[in-house]
Order: sequence, then structure tokens, then C-alpha cells
Amino acid sequence: MNPDILKERKNATFDVEKLTYILDGGPEKTKRRREIESMVLSDPDFKEENPCFLSRSERYDQAVRKSAQMILKLREYGIADPEEIYCYKNCVHPDRPEPLDLHLGMFLPTLLNQATPEQMDRFFMPAWNLEIIGTYAQTEMGHGTHLRGLETTATYDPATQDFVLNSPTISSIKWWPGGLGKTSNHAIVLAQLYTQGNCHGLHAFITPLRDMKTHEPLPGVVIGDIGPKFGFNEVDNGYLKLENIRIPRENMLMKYAKVEPDGTYVKPPSAKLTYGTMVFIRSMIVGESARALSKACTIAIRYSSVRHQSEIRPGEPEPQILDYQTQQYKLFPLLAMAYAFHFVGQYMKETYLRISGDINEGDFSKLPELHALSAGLKAFTTWETNSGIEVCRMSCGGHGYSCSSALPDIYVQFTPTCTYEGENTVMMLQTARYLVKSYRQAKAGQQLSGIVSYLNEAQHQRVQPQPVAARPTVVDINDLASLVEVYKLRAAILVELAAKSIQQELQRRKSQEDAWNNSAIDLVRASDAHCHYVVVKLFTDKLRDIGDTGVHSVLSSLALLYALQGVTRNSGDFLQAGLLSVPQVLQSSVRIKELLSQLRLNAVALVDAFDHNDKKLNSVLGRYDGNVYENLFEWARNSPLNATEVHESFHKYLKPLRAKL
Amino acid sequence: MNPDILKERKNATFDVEKLTYILDGGPEKTKRRREIESMVLSDPDFKEENPCFLSRSERYDQAVRKSAQMILKLREYGIADPEEIYCYKNCVHPDRPEPLDLHLGMFLPTLLNQATPEQMDRFFMPAWNLEIIGTYAQTEMGHGTHLRGLETTATYDPATQDFVLNSPTISSIKWWPGGLGKTSNHAIVLAQLYTQGNCHGLHAFITPLRDMKTHEPLPGVVIGDIGPKFGFNEVDNGYLKLENIRIPRENMLMKYAKVEPDGTYVKPPSAKLTYGTMVFIRSMIVGESARALSKACTIAIRYSSVRHQSEIRPGEPEPQILDYQTQQYKLFPLLAMAYAFHFVGQYMKETYLRISGDINEGDFSKLPELHALSAGLKAFTTWETNSGIEVCRMSCGGHGYSCSSALPDIYVQFTPTCTYEGENTVMMLQTARYLVKSYRQAKAGQQLSGIVSYLNEAQHQRVQPQPVAARPTVVDINDLASLVEVYKLRAAILVELAAKSIQQELQRRKSQEDAWNNSAIDLVRASDAHCHYVVVKLFTDKLRDIGDTGVHSVLSSLALLYALQGVTRNSGDFLQAGLLSVPQVLQSSVRIKELLSQLRLNAVALVDAFDHNDKKLNSVLGRYDGNVYENLFEWARNSPLNATEVHESFHKYLKPLRAKL
Repeated sequence: MNPDILKERKNATFDVEKLTYILDGGPEKTKRRREIESMVLSDPDFKEENPCFLSRSERYDQAVRKSAQMILKLREYGIADPEEIYCYKNCVHPDRPEPLDLHLGMFLPTLLNQATPEQMDRFFMPAWNLEIIGTYAQTEMGHGTHLRGLETTATYDPATQDFVLNSPTISSIKWWPGGLGKTSNHAIVLAQLYTQGNCHGLHAFITPLRDMKTHEPLPGVVIGDIGPKFGFNEVDNGYLKLENIRIPRENMLMKYAKVEPDGTYVKPPSAKLTYGTMVFIRSMIVGESARALSKACTIAIRYSSVRHQSEIRPGEPEPQILDYQTQQYKLFPLLAMAYAFHFVGQYMKETYLRISGDINEGDFSKLPELHALSAGLKAFTTWETNSGIEVCRMSCGGHGYSCSSALPDIYVQFTPTCTYEGENTVMMLQTARYLVKSYRQAKAGQQLSGIVSYLNEAQHQRVQPQPVAARPTVVDINDLASLVEVYKLRAAILVELAAKSIQQELQRRKSQEDAWNNSAIDLVRASDAHCHYVVVKLFTDKLRDIGDTGVHSVLSSLALLYALQGVTRNSGDFLQAGLLSVPQVLQSSVRIKELLSQLRLNAVALVDAFDHNDKKLNSVLGRYDGNVYENLFEWARNSPLNATEVHESFHKYLKPLRAKL
Repeated sequence: MNPDILKERKNATFDVEKLTYILDGGPEKTKRRREIESMVLSDPDFKEENPCFLSRSERYDQAVRKSAQMILKLREYGIADPEEIYCYKNCVHPDRPEPLDLHLGMFLPTLLNQATPEQMDRFFMPAWNLEIIGTYAQTEMGHGTHLRGLETTATYDPATQDFVLNSPTISSIKWWPGGLGKTSNHAIVLAQLYTQGNCHGLHAFITPLRDMKTHEPLPGVVIGDIGPKFGFNEVDNGYLKLENIRIPRENMLMKYAKVEPDGTYVKPPSAKLTYGTMVFIRSMIVGESARALSKACTIAIRYSSVRHQSEIRPGEPEPQILDYQTQQYKLFPLLAMAYAFHFVGQYMKETYLRISGDINEGDFSKLPELHALSAGLKAFTTWETNSGIEVCRMSCGGHGYSCSSALPDIYVQFTPTCTYEGENTVMMLQTARYLVKSYRQAKAGQQLSGIVSYLNEAQHQRVQPQPVAARPTVVDINDLASLVEVYKLRAAILVELAAKSIQQELQRRKSQEDAWNNSAIDLVRASDAHCHYVVVKLFTDKLRDIGDTGVHSVLSSLALLYALQGVTRNSGDFLQAGLLSVPQVLQSSVRIKELLSQLRLNAVALVDAFDHNDKKLNSVLGRYDGNVYENLFEWARNSPLNATEVHESFHKYLKPLRAKL
């Protein structure tokens, strides 16, 4: 163990293990997680070549091998609980996407949710036994988040009782689905349903793509890998062009909507039935933000405790770079954010489970709020995490650029969350739509419930932008409850500002739609402030549940740091609205510095509490033992370019060149 | 040509070609640049496999091949002007680093600057003719920006008149130098010079690494590639461990400092002599920021003009995504920034040339200011560009993640500029040191010259943080000169705030050094504000030189957008200091929206003016003709995973799995 990191751990003022339990949701959960981790990580069948040193085809190959093993082992060990499967999978493919992701995460669940009993008989067991390997083919080259724009057609032919599937344009080619390029032999294809001359919108069709024996593409199926990407090297994201593919009528997923043999279309009982999965996935992404950020923080903070550089006081040994105020200022607010997002992720999961109970009983009343919240928080947490990972990476200096740090991989694996499952700006605007609607209801005197109820209060308090002097100073910047209040008022004011912008545009005779577009900057800002309020609030709420004094104290400091850093980063908003005075903003900066030096003591312990296993973390810089340099050298020697002392290009190009010059 | 993009070009209100001339520095320069580009891009010897589809070893191999060709052709065509060589090289390896970069950019120039005539005879021509291929081995595993911490030793042995070079620790292993791993047979090694029992600090030693015939590493030389990184796949960044390597006394670069045969050390006449190159490279990076950002903007804006998505008005065709206010708000401020940084880059280059004339005549008086300016601007422009590229990438939705967009490559090639040639936070603090020193001089009544002279004025005006109400509102947010003034005052106030923070820490009995570290957040903020002021000022100054009305008008809008976006992003600073009132901040937001819709018309023309050749840009999304979708499909089909219809992993893992389940 590196002596610096040992010293850090000795200095910690709280019990790391207790905090880990809180993060996992209880000591039993921690225990079970560790059991699963050790089961996978000690299993020789999951031993892998370091993917950094492999070609893309080799990475794909290795991932398929491990996924196949994983399926076998899950059966063998009888692991069936979704959370445990998720945990197991995350150890087999350490937080990496893999070729069977969509088979397991979308194809099977969609069958469960939308297939008729007859379809379950035909497709589920073959899919369960990996004879059928499926993916979910929704996104097209020309359309992603805007689903109504998808162009693939499924036209019903009553003569043969077939659907004829087509990709009528280049832009309608299915593009991006994971596992589509090489792995899957079936897909659930989302297509515009045409029957009896009418289009009935998007429906799902089980479509065979490859021969079940030879795995060759079927006639009319033009299919392949979409090529190298920013990361996601293990996955064969694919394209699919359908040329008059005929599938039987019974291959449309018909639990809800139906097409009868004569072509009569039968509507689904509710349009909201397919809504839930989307909300669930977006809620899950909040937790993934927390995990990705916690990994990046673990690496950067551990490395900063063993890296010595430059000097603070002349003549003294080089300090740990964690002693630099600038380094603390880069990393500790992100550490606080990782904790904040973790607790928000827990909240979203609990809320989803609670509300999905209602949904199963046909009560959709809480869905709009959850939908709005999950959209905004998905965008808010992924954007913040996305830039946060890069701050962590760059805080490691040059070595952060090496794949040995794992930071480049964490970034490229995480960054797509800003776009998939709903492009972030679109997500922010969806939340804004809900906020503006709620604001108008509040203004009309309606009593709102749930997380937007503050829009009632705000109406009551007649909050509006006004000069600093006009607002009395009642905020205590050292008190989290008080800060939650100002975040709430900021959100209320920015929602009002956006609503007023729309109003002004309408007064200039703009259409409703143009008024919306011309206020979009304000709307995104309002959503952002709303989400920020929710995060600060939920972090603060969480503190109430924490009994242990040591843990409570350090988490309170983190929550305060998170809240105050948000204040200084957005001080314009708070000053503009008269929510804080100039002296309070200046005090916030001073208080942040105090919190940084206070948290310095516990920084390593706080990342230890995330309990990222070294093998899963796979980072030379983030090793638990802090022995960075010797392992960096060891790692580098395995670079494929070092397989020979002299690269062939010397003989091919450089040596012959001498004669010519 | 895609009709949308054609329409955009028809609507432009200015002459694109005239703007290109301004960017290049005159029509002759544009002409010559295009000549060189067409010379390279039409040359079959430089034809390449798309690197996206190659393995790292293949990418390195291809780069070496092209570099060797390049050397031959430069001789053949007699291209010798450094700027033209730079241009030629940037076409051969389209803005990509390459294995000979350090040979050409550091090894040869260092010989020219620091070798004695005897050393020139021995080394220069062999290096010119690529018998000697060299690199510049400075950075070590344990130390980068902090040069004094480097640990490699060169100990003089008067008995044999040799230097003995050693890597005494793991952390002293040379790490990162480009071309070190496989390509170079020599390096200029930076090492702590020991002679007669004393250490004389860092000096440069020409060190043979590999056998000139076989290219095998020499005895005692442990050398190799440091492994995969975030980008830079073409370059063999290397490690070098020196184990008692003996080189003759005459291999120390002795134009300035000397070691005599008996071991007597002779000091260099000035410590500042090696300073200039560093300043030059940092100044160049400002221009590289502009180029990288202009490429990212070109891709994102062209794509946004041909991509149609969703709806603004129901029932109407899907609009170009460039019509969304949120998209404009993401991209146009970055477009403005690319122009701003371009002009700042021009200024830095001119200033460097002017001052280096003085330096050659032994006048170092202007060097500290240039040093401070280049450090801060290097950090400011690279950080902004770094996040700007990612905003551009994500503004392209899913396709921005595909390597076909070129955006992932632009990012990974650019991001190291935040760390190399001086880590950005360290750079900001260096500039802050100069600012605080200047501030203290001004306070002591000294008249400052150059770009910091505003610190005198500020003293005079007694500018300090104060509530909004106390400051009269004289700023016109539509007037650039007026905005330059408030940026200047903001910088002055933040420099003062940082200086006062140091003062307060000293009053708390902190040492000078701890006071500095405990004020580092404020110091970075002051530097940032200073650089921001310089950029706004230089962009505004540049407008004066532009005669053409159309061009002047559109660049003025860009400059105003750049300045106002900085105001709203940092509104807290301006409000806090009472430099702007709340209504002015609100007006700025409104004005920004007007500028966005005004610039909408010229957006495509403004990126066309950067004149990035399609072949160099190598982006399917950024094609000049706008024909994105068909070319995306074409590109994807070339993915190596599509070489066979069925990947071998199916037969190896998936098919056998069925029998086991």
C-alpha cells in the first residue's frame, strides 16, 4: 500500500463501511453485491484480455464469448432477480455495453409487455434459450427522439395475411440499434402501420433477420455494422434496410393494438401503456450518471493523493496534488455531485416502483409528473456528469489521457446517455412543457400537487425578478433548508420568466408554436433550475435518514458544498432575482473554500465508500493500493506496438528513405 | 448539392471569398494555401485508407509511410518556408499528429537554437536526411509541467569525458514524448546535470537510442510505446529508461551553458534564452484552438442545415434543425468564438514575431508580458474549445458519436492541448502571478504599459465590488466598445479581489505561499476574466481593419454575440461588481436571441468561409454538398465488421450455446 493513501485512510473521520451500506441500501445489499462481484471476478471463464489492447473485432468477439458464458452461469447459479442480474452483468462486462444488451434489456421485456399469449409461446422460450437473439430496431438514420417521424412502413396485405415491411428511403434505414449488425437474428421493428389505406402510427413487429441455422441474412434484409464510434467498441450497433420483407400478421405485437385478418385496425385501450418502460430507463440513467461520476472521482481523487508535484512552500517536498486548492475545487464539488446523483437515482427508482404499482392497476394520474421529472433529471444529470468526467480526466494531467487510467473509456461509454433514450435538449423542453402547464394552472388558481407545488407558493409570494435592494435578506447560506428555499424560488422565477417570454411572443402575433420556439432558451433554463432544485432538495432530504453522526456530518458538508457551488456558478440568477445579496454571494465563495479544506481530510475515504472493485474499475491511476507508477510501466509494456522491438514500418519506409535523400 | 444547403448559400448577405481572405491574411495567402492543399490532396502517393477502419499498428504504419513520402516531396518541390511546410504537413496528415512531429518540430529546431557549430556538423545534416531521427524527451512519468522536478540525471565523468545518463527511479522514466516509442533513434534528453558534485539543473543531451543500422535499442536503453491513449493513434508516444548510458561530453548542447573537459560548469549568459520556443508554441496553440473549433462548427452547422427533425408548426414539413432556437444557441456562440480565437491567434503570432525580433537583439523586456499572455490565452482558448467541440458533437444527435462525423477524432486530437505545453490551471496561475504583480505595481503608483495598463486606470477609478444601485448605468449593451470597457473593469475587479484574498490570508498569518494557494480559485478566476477581456478587445479591434461592408456587418454581429454571451454566462460577476444592472442583463438575453435569428441567415456561409477542404475535414456530416445520408450508408458498409456477413463469434460461441441451454 502506498504510504500516502494509507495516511489518507487513517485520517478519515467516519466509518467508510457504514456509508457504503447507505449507498447500497443496507448491509445485506452490500454483502450480496460483493458476493456476486467476487463470484464473477474470480471466475476463470470470465478472464479477459485487456480490451485496450484489442482490435474492435477482437473486442466484439471477446464480449460475445463472455455474454454467452454469462447466460450459462446465470442459469447455473439460478440468478433471476433483475437487480442481481444487472449486478452480475455489470461485473462480467465492467460497466461496458455488450452485444446482448438489447436482447436482454429490450427484446425480452417487450415480449413480456406486449406479446399475446400465442406470441409468448412462439417467441419467448426460443428467445430465452438464445435460439432467437433479438434487438429493438426503432431509431432510423433520419429520426431518433422524434418517433412520429420514423419512416419504416409495415403494410398489411389481407390477401396473404402478411405485413410487408419496407425501408422506403435512405433515411428510413434502421440505424444504431445495439446487437443489430452481427449478433441478432430477429428484431422487434418499429414501423408505421398501414392497413386499409390508413396509417395508424408506430407499431412493433417481430421480424426475422437471419437464417436460424447459418446466420446468413435473409433475402431482402440488408444488414450490417454501422462502423466505429466514440467508444461502444464491444457492440455491433447496426443498420437494417428492409426490402419487401413479408412477415405473418401474427408477428405484430398485439397484446394491445390489433390488426384483424381482414385488415381492420383495433386501437389499444390506452396510448400510455408503452410509456412506462421509457420512464423507467430514463430514471435508471440518473443512477448510471452517479455511478460513472463516482468512478471518475475515485480515480482522480486516489491519484491526486499519491501524485506529488511542484511546490507550495519552497524547500519542502513536493505536495500531494490534492493539497492544491484548485485541484480540490475541481474534484470535491464533483464528488458531492456524485453523492447527490446517487441519492436522486435511489429516489427515482423508488418513485418509479411506487407509481408503476398504480399504473398496473390502470391509474396513470402520476405518470405525467414522473415523466417530466425523469426527462429533465436524465438530461440534467447526464450533462453534468458528462462534463464532470472530463474534469476528472484532465485533473490527472497527462496520464488521464492514457487508456490505462480508464478515464477515456468511462467518458466514451457514458457520453451517449446525453443523446440516447431522448436527446437532452428535447428532454429539457419536455420538462419545461410540464412546468409551464403547471405554472398556468397555478396562476389560474388551481392547487398543484407533487414536486411542482412550489409554483403555487410562488404565485402566492408574487415572486418576480426585482433588484437586490427590494428583497429582504433572510437566507442563511450555511443552512441547507434555507438554500433549498432559494433554489426553489429561483426555479419558480425562471419558470415564470419563460412563461412570460412565451406570452410576449404571442403578443407580437407569433403563433403558439413560434412563441414556444422563440422562448426555448428560457424554457431550458427553467427546466435546468427546476432539476437543480430537485437535486438539492433530495440530497438535503436524504440527510434526515442518516443516523450515524460521522457519516451525517461528512455528507452534510458535501450537500452544502454542492448547494453553494451551484449558487456561485449561477450567481447571476440569484442576484438578478434578488434572492441573494452581493455579500451573500461573496460569503458563499469563502464558505466553499472552507468546505474544500474540511473535506480534504475525508476525500479518499469518501471515494472508498463507493466501493468500486479494482478489477471492475480497471484503472492504473485509481488502484486502491495507490501503487500507480510501477503498474503504469507494467501496463505500457503490454502495448501491442511493443510486441516487436522494431516496427516493420522502419524497414518498409524509414530505412529506404535514407537512400533517397 | 443538397437543396437545403444550396438555399442557405444563396441567402448569405456577404461575400464568402472576401472573408476567407481575411482569415488567411490576404488573397495571395489563400491562393497559395489552396495550391498546397490541391498538391497534396490530389497526390496518389498520399492516398490513405480511412484510419477509422484501421488498427492502431496499421494507423501508425500508414502515418510513417506518409511522413516518409512527405519528406521526399517537400525536397522535390523545394518547399522550405516554415508556414508552407506547416500547411503541407497539415494536408498530408489532416490536422493529425504524426510520428515525425517531434523530429521536425522540436529536434531540428533545438539543434538550430542550442547546438554549437561542431554539433551542427555532426548532427544536423544526418537529422535533415532522416538518418538520425530524433525526439525531445522531457516529460517523465512523475513530472510534466513542473520542470524542476524532473529526475533524470546526467553525471559528468571527467575520467572518460562522458556523461552518464540514468533514470534513477520509476517515476523518472521518460514518458509521453511523441515518436519516442518506435520511430526515433536519437533523443534530446533533458536531464539534471551533475558535475564536480554539484547539480546545475536541467540541460539537454543528444542521446543515441537505437542502432543506426538495425534500429534495435542500444544496450541500457529500455524503450517502447506507452500504449493506447485517447486518440493520437498515429503517434508512438514512448517511454525511455536509461541505465548507465554513456555519451561523450560533446553531446551536451553547449551553445550557451558548457561543461569543460575537466568538469567545470559554465553558466549560460541568460536563463531566458530557451524561453522563446515555449512562448511561441503556446501562441500557436491559440490558433489551433480556432482551427479545431472552426472544423467542429463547420460540421455541426452544415449538418444542422440539412437535418430535418420534429416540428415547430403542426402539419408543416419537419424544419431544418438549425431553425430551433436551442440549436442556434448551442452553435452560433461557438461560431463567434471560433472567429474570435482566430483573430486572437493572428494577433499572438504577429506579436510573437515582433517581440522575437527584440529578443534576438538581446532585449527581453517585453517577454514577461508575452509569456503571461500566451500562458493564459493558451489555457482560456483550449478549455473553451475543448468543451465547444463536444457541444458541436452532441448537437449532431446520434450521428455525432459515429466516427464518420469526424467529431470524435477532432475532440481526441484536440483535448491534449489542455494539458501539454503547460497544464491549463498552472498556466492560468502563471498569468495570475503577472496580473497580481502588475496590480501591486499599479497600486504603488507605477505606470504600467501594455495590455495590463488597465490596472492603472482601475486604480484611478477606484473600481471595487459594490452593490448595483451605487454604480451609474452608462453601459450600452449594443455597443462593442462599451462592452470592452465592462470586460476590462470586470477583469480589474477580479484581479483586485484575488490580490485582496492573498492579503487577507497573509493577515491570518499564513505564509506567502499558503496565502497564494488559498487564493488560487480567485486567481484562476481573475486570469480567466483577463483573458476574456483580451479576446473581446482583440475581436473588436479587428473589426476596424475590415473595409468590406457586408463582411464587417456580419463579423460585428458575431463579435457582439460573443461579448453578450459572455455577459449572460458570467452575469453574476457583472452584477456583483455593479458593472451592469439587472435590466441590462435581461436585455442582453433578449439581444442574444435577436442576434441568433439574424445570424441564422449567414450561418452556413460563415462556416464556408473557413474553407475547410472536404478531404481534410473527412466528415460525412460536414460535407460541402450536404449529401449526408447516402454517404453515411456508404461509409458504414466499409466497416471492418462487415467484411463477412457472419462474424466468427457466431460459430464459436452463440451456436454452441443453444445446445447447452
